[in-house]
Amino acid sequence: MSAIEDLTTELARLPGIGRKTALRLTYYLLKRPPEESRRLARVLERVAEQVHPCSTCGNLTETDPCALCSNPRRDGSSICVVEEASDIGPIERTGEYRGLYHVLGGRISPLEGIGPDELNVQGLLGRLADGGVREVIVATNPSVEGEATALYLQKVIRPLGVRVTRLARGLPVGGDLEYADGVTIAEALSGRREL
Amino acid sequence: MSAIEDLTTELARLPGIGRKTALRLTYYLLKRPPEESRRLARVLERVAEQVHPCSTCGNLTETDPCALCSNPRRDGSSICVVEEASDIGPIERTGEYRGLYHVLGGRISPLEGIGPDELNVQGLLGRLADGGVREVIVATNPSVEGEATALYLQKVIRPLGVRVTRLARGLPVGGDLEYADGVTIAEALSGRREL
Repeated sequence: MSAIEDLTTELARLPGIGRKTALRLTYYLLKRPPEESRRLARVLERVAEQVHPCSTCGNLTETDPCALCSNPRRDGSSICVVEEASDIGPIERTGEYRGLYHVLGGRISPLEGIGPDELNVQGLLGRLADGGVREVIVATNPSVEGEATALYLQKVIRPLGVRVTRLARGLPVGGDLEYADGVTIAEALSGRREL
Repeated sequence: MSAIEDLTTELARLPGIGRKTALRLTYYLLKRPPEESRRLARVLERVAEQVHPCSTCGNLTETDPCALCSNPRRDGSSICVVEEASDIGPIERTGEYRGLYHVLGGRISPLEGIGPDELNVQGLLGRLADGGVREVIVATNPSVEGEATALYLQKVIRPLGVRVTRLARGLPVGGDLEYADGVTIAEALSGRREL
């Protein structure tokens, strides 16, 4: 196969990129200076070589422990549990959280055969056993599986005397009550706060 | 910057890929075996190193002349003129054309400062001067600029005694008259054929 076809095939493997988009991207790269393709190639190599999960929290990193775990200014008394490493960025960008993280690597999903043993729960319990953690904030997704995972974590962590909290559910800021689904409105009602 | 951020930045440079999609692609690649990123890196390197325009027709190729120009079974009496190398694939896939191609590298667009001198018109005229070509099929896009380019080519080629034709305009097959624009219907009317 020609390099052009090979590149199209590889790009079409990416999620959300069909054959036509892959072709368009290939011809875009072919029209640009070769240096652009090389730069993308080099950073892909670097990611493949150097990025790995942090042995402490599971965040994807080039160092070990990761920049978050090794930062002495982070609050070690709080661990925020997320499903995937990609969930850390959105929380960090709020600038509202100064504690540590723990990546589960998924969520409990009996339908997909994923139970607690398939997730990095032991690593989390090990970190709690070391002491010093006072609160675990469960930030799994607001889905059925995310809820199930949160309930499971609450069950195994509470006996350790560590507080377990969950991100609030409610109306998204900037959203419109008219377009909110019933379950979200019900959650917003039950979680209502004093003004 | 970290490799993860670098990869996201490079992916976000691609057309139609915003920052969020680039992040999603990055984390997709990070979840897959590193071999997948390496394979994409290798084929990008190969494209950057080896793909170049055919010195005869301008098609993008790893050999020179390209596989189309060097194929003795192609009909050398016909040249199909396209704006970009990426336009060759769609025509080839019809299986209805057995002649050669010529890539202009764009279309005449006074607004963007692109005149005939910015396109590979001299290369085309040189091929026609060699003799043997009886028909030039202009397959520029059915846009204002594509039309202007076609008219220009007709003006410079016809004096050489070579037939110049243009792809037919009309209703797209499988299309719906109700949704066709007026200009297309007008073209379809004026280009109507006997049943």
